[in-house]
Amino acid sequence: MGFFTKDIKTLNDLFVHTLQDICYAERQIAKKLPDMIEKATEPSLKNGFETHLAETKNQVVRLEKIFKMNGVQAKGVDCPAIDGIRKEASEVAGDVDDNQILDAAPTAAAQAVEHNEVTRYGTLIAWAKKLGRNDCASVLEQNLDEEKATDQKLNKMALDSMNQKAA
Amino acid sequence: MGFFTKDIKTLNDLFVHTLQDICYAERQIAKKLPDMIEKATEPSLKNGFETHLAETKNQVVRLEKIFKMNGVQAKGVDCPAIDGIRKEASEVAGDVDDNQILDAAPTAAAQAVEHNEVTRYGTLIAWAKKLGRNDCASVLEQNLDEEKATDQKLNKMALDSMNQKAA
Repeated sequence: MGFFTKDIKTLNDLFVHTLQDICYAERQIAKKLPDMIEKATEPSLKNGFETHLAETKNQVVRLEKIFKMNGVQAKGVDCPAIDGIRKEASEVAGDVDDNQILDAAPTAAAQAVEHNEVTRYGTLIAWAKKLGRNDCASVLEQNLDEEKATDQKLNKMALDSMNQKAA
Repeated sequence: MGFFTKDIKTLNDLFVHTLQDICYAERQIAKKLPDMIEKATEPSLKNGFETHLAETKNQVVRLEKIFKMNGVQAKGVDCPAIDGIRKEASEVAGDVDDNQILDAAPTAAAQAVEHNEVTRYGTLIAWAKKLGRNDCASVLEQNLDEEKATDQKLNKMALDSMNQKAA
């Protein structure tokens, strides 16, 4: 999250901060996906990343809406977790040269990103409800449902892709 | 994962490397949990972290067993993802002073850790099966099941704790 904890005094502060954290993460992913699309060798995976890029852009729009609903500025904050996951992904993507595993590493990295988002949205939804903001919770649930579905799709693609390559 | 991709030539290399990655992560969590236990204010959360510390130590033993089954040295590698998640957790834990949210932030951080492990174990299990190593997959499944159960428990504790504090 990368913030000064002295600024976090209430559950609402923690909610807004975690919203900024996920907003930064989604924006970073939107920046990274075009590179992953370019490097994916399996057409279904390439297509899956393309769909997720469109979804991610829409998720950022939803997050901006929630910032507005809370009367706060739609800004991101540094998020060491997503930076770390991205760093791992960058180290793996690109240079692996065995055809069978070319898609395996970036798919695993993408799933790590999805899981990080699933946990953050789960937390944000619980906190929104606790704060009596079911309106915010229901917008966040749309993002959560998409992330869960993407993880499932990546799971299937990872296995299909490896099976096809091995065939 | 923090490795030189030139060393990753086969799916087996990727499997071993990701095993080193999760091994590092589990060891880091085992080091961090005593501090989280000390700082937790809700007895159920303190107790939950204590149980998870015992589980984590046992999970490291299982990972060491898998290294042995693969004839490789049981060593960890740097893992920017878990370091990032830990950095976030450290920034939040400790200094938040509103009683209602004292446990909320570390619980959310712990859930982020669990989700990162769930995705890594899921990937490792798929790769182990692909490599014809169902023996390794079944040991990894024990760790995965525990991580999923811990995440569920943390979810419940996070909500219960906040409800009690608000009452």
